[in-house]
Parts: sequence; C-alpha cells; structure tokens
Amino acid sequence: MRVRHKPWAKGKLDQHSDIVIQSPKEYSGEWRDLFKRDAPLHVEIGSGKGSFITGMAKKYPTINFIGIELHESVIVTALDHCLDENLKNVRLINEDARGLTEFFAEDEVDALYLNFCDPWPKKRHEKRRLTYSAFLAQYEYVLKKGGILNFKTDNQGLFEYSLESFSKYGFVLQNISLDLHHSGMQNNVVTEYEEKFSEKGQRIYRCEAISSE
Amino acid sequence: MRVRHKPWAKGKLDQHSDIVIQSPKEYSGEWRDLFKRDAPLHVEIGSGKGSFITGMAKKYPTINFIGIELHESVIVTALDHCLDENLKNVRLINEDARGLTEFFAEDEVDALYLNFCDPWPKKRHEKRRLTYSAFLAQYEYVLKKGGILNFKTDNQGLFEYSLESFSKYGFVLQNISLDLHHSGMQNNVVTEYEEKFSEKGQRIYRCEAISSE
Ligand SMILES: C[S@@+](CC[C@H](N)C(=O)[O-])C[C@H]1O[C@@H](n2cnc3c(N)ncnc32)[C@H](O)[C@@H]1O
Ligand SMILES: C[S@@+](CC[C@H](N)C(=O)[O-])C[C@H]1O[C@@H](n2cnc3c(N)ncnc32)[C@H](O)[C@@H]1O
Repeated sequence: MRVRHKPWAKGKLDQHSDIVIQSPKEYSGEWRDLFKRDAPLHVEIGSGKGSFITGMAKKYPTINFIGIELHESVIVTALDHCLDENLKNVRLINEDARGLTEFFAEDEVDALYLNFCDPWPKKRHEKRRLTYSAFLAQYEYVLKKGGILNFKTDNQGLFEYSLESFSKYGFVLQNISLDLHHSGMQNNVVTEYEEKFSEKGQRIYRCEAISSE
Repeated sequence: MRVRHKPWAKGKLDQHSDIVIQSPKEYSGEWRDLFKRDAPLHVEIGSGKGSFITGMAKKYPTINFIGIELHESVIVTALDHCLDENLKNVRLINEDARGLTEFFAEDEVDALYLNFCDPWPKKRHEKRRLTYSAFLAQYEYVLKKGGILNFKTDNQGLFEYSLESFSKYGFVLQNISLDLHHSGMQNNVVTEYEEKFSEKGQRIYRCEAISSE
C-alpha cells in the first residue's frame, strides 16, 4: 500500500489517546477493564486503514475490538473512522505486532484476524511472514484454547504456506474457502486490500485456525 | 467416467490372478512376501484405468504398488497396462476400498494415494466422500506413523472439505498446491481424470496428509 507520509499523523494519534492506546503493555491482562465491560476480545494484526476492524465493530457491538498497525500514516485513517462513527468498542495500537505477547496476557484474546499480510514470497524471507511458526507461537499464547485465528489473503503461495504452517504448529483448520467471493459466504467484512484484489478478479482465500492449547 | 460394460472383463481378471489378487484378505500383513521383497508399500484407492499406478511403478521400480478399484470394466485396463509393460512391482485388487483394514495390517502401508475421488457435493452425502472421517480412520490404521496420504482433486469444494477433515482428524498437512499444473511441481504422474480436467483449464489441487499415529 503506497501511503503518503503524513507528518501531522503522530500528533493526531497522541491527541486521541482514549482510542489510540499509548502504553499497551500496561493493559496486558486488563483490557476488559479499559473497555469497562466483560466482552469477548478480538484483535486484528496489521489493520491498515481500519475498514475491517471498524466494519466489524459496527456489525458486532457486543465485542471489544483492538487493531494493531505499525504505520502512523495508515492507522490515522482508522482513527478517523472511529471518530466519524463514534465507535465505543474499538481501540487502536500503533506498534509493531511483534510485541503481541507483551500487549496481551496468556489466553486473554478470543479471536485474532490477519488480513492480507505481506506475502514475502522469497524462501529466505520466510521468517518475516506473519504465519511463520514464531508468530504462531505468539498467537497461540494470547489466544484462549479454542480461540480462532481468522486468516484472509489473495496470495496463493502465502495461503499454501500458511495452511501447512498452521497444521504443523498444531492449529486445527476449519471453514476453508478457496474463492471466498464466489462461495456464498455471509457476513464477510471486506478489507481495503480485499476490495482492491477482488475488483481485479483475483481469488480471495480464507481459513480459520483453531488454537488447541 | 462413463465406461462401457465389458462382460469379458471378469474372465480376464481371473486369468491373471498373479496380478489381480483374488483373496486380498489372505495377504494382510504379508504383502511383502507376495512381492518377494522387503520394499515400501504404496497403495492407490480408486485407481481407475491405472495410468497413475503404472506410471508410478515405472518411475519408482524399488517400491511395491497396489491399486484398488471396484469396477471390473475399468480395472481391466489397468491390468492391460501391467501386462503390456511387464511390470513386476504392481498388484491390483478388484474390491471395494471400504475393506482396506481387512486387506492390510496395522502400519503395513507406507503411502496412500487418493486421486479425483467422487466429490459427493451434497451435504447429506458427506459420509460417502472418501475423505470423510470414517475413511480417514481406516487410512490411519493401515498407514505407519509418518506415512503419507497423497490427495489430488479438481473439485474445489471437496478440497476445502478434505483439508478440514484431515486437520480435524489429526493428520498434519504439507506440500499443499492450489494449482498443481502451474506450480513448477516436478515428478507429478498424471491420472486419467487429471489429464481431462487440466486440459479443460481447471485447477488441480493437491496436498499430503501425514499420519501422526
Ligand atoms: C498489506 S497491508 C494489509 C492491510 C489491511 N489488513 C487490509 O487487508 O487491507 C499490511 C499491513 O500490515 C502492517 N504491518 C506489517 N507488519 C506489521 C507488524 N509487524 N506490526 C504491525 N503492523 C504491521 C502494514 O503496515 C500494513 O498496513
Ligand atoms: C472419479 S474416478 C477417478 C479414477 C482415477 N483415480 C483418476 O484419477 O483418473 C473414481 C474411481 O474410484 C472408484 N471407486 C469409487 N469408490 C470406490 C470404492 N469404494 N472402492 C474402490 N474403488 C472405488 C471408481 O470406480 C472410479 O474408477
């Protein structure tokens, strides 16, 4: 995603520290307190401009959502969505998702979303893929037993790799779709990348990986 | 596959009882003796006209192959291939593959192949799919620990179903291909159905499911 650098983004994120949480580590194990309610916690990794997480938050008002996104110039658009729509059940974290196990306590998360993460197609970049085993270890740590990692991508090679990676790590697969937009699937909330790729006629792949520990 | 009924097929199969094994249950646990050598044993389920199993047998002369096929009028063509090419490392079983655990002893088989089995798309026919859990139980029984079930299909719905079914049963997935004929895969031996479907431009799906018990 080519995004114009926005020098003012940082300032805006700081201004809205009620939505963009500044020291996420401090809330580890206590996110429900921050939301002031005991509701399921769903976290998106690499949430980009936030169409998905805000769309989900509107659709499922009884769930608490958190979006983690590294880039200021992107997450600031997600913040705009939250403000425009006055969403009470979304928080944002402007950090590297590699800190996941610092942001959340063991078994604190009910569901994770990973949408259109970078495919890193070269074999020598395998460890950068967000479905590489070292990341799965983090996902399993924060997910409760039976918690679900929801994965979507347009990239065939990444999807093949990820199914194998989930399986080898011990996640159980379900609801696999090899062509989501022609599967009659209901309740799909579209991401920015998903919209772009599906308009081009590319297949969208999806699966759920269930944490068994 | 529409196949002309061949009234003479049964007689021909009986004539070649050195290749088409008449009482397969008697060899359970002793197939290596029948082949007169201690070599890996690979079994194909629903081997049709035998292009795959005979192609594999030529390519891998140090492996013992067995093809199971229900229909006389189809398996007789597989027999013809064996005779024409004078293959010593193939045997055929003209029976219902549902007898698998009677034909083979626990852990006797090193690899299974399931190619283009009937998709049975209707939900109420799920139990007929050869990747339904009850069949997976049989595959796991005959496969040794670490043994591989090799699966190919053109049918998207069956592939989605089967990946989930393998995963839920406890098989570990590897070497998943969502478009085999455009994947640069080496050493692929093509089946009759595969040739037909790939000529039509359909995707061929493939995966390996590793038995963990
Ligand atoms: C290809 S974009 C997809 C964005 C969005 N999920 C969608 O589907 O439209 C990947 C996003 O993940 C973010 N990202 C990549 N690695 C990250 C990391 N380690 N931590 C947080 N965000 C990351 C990128 O900044 C980018 O916004
Ligand atoms: C769709 S055809 C595929 C044939 C071949 N494997 C190929 O890829 O070209 C399925 C084959 O499986 C056989 N078959 C179906 N159910 C079977 C069973 N329970 N036992 C043995 N063979 C079976 C059918 O007779 C048929 O030849």
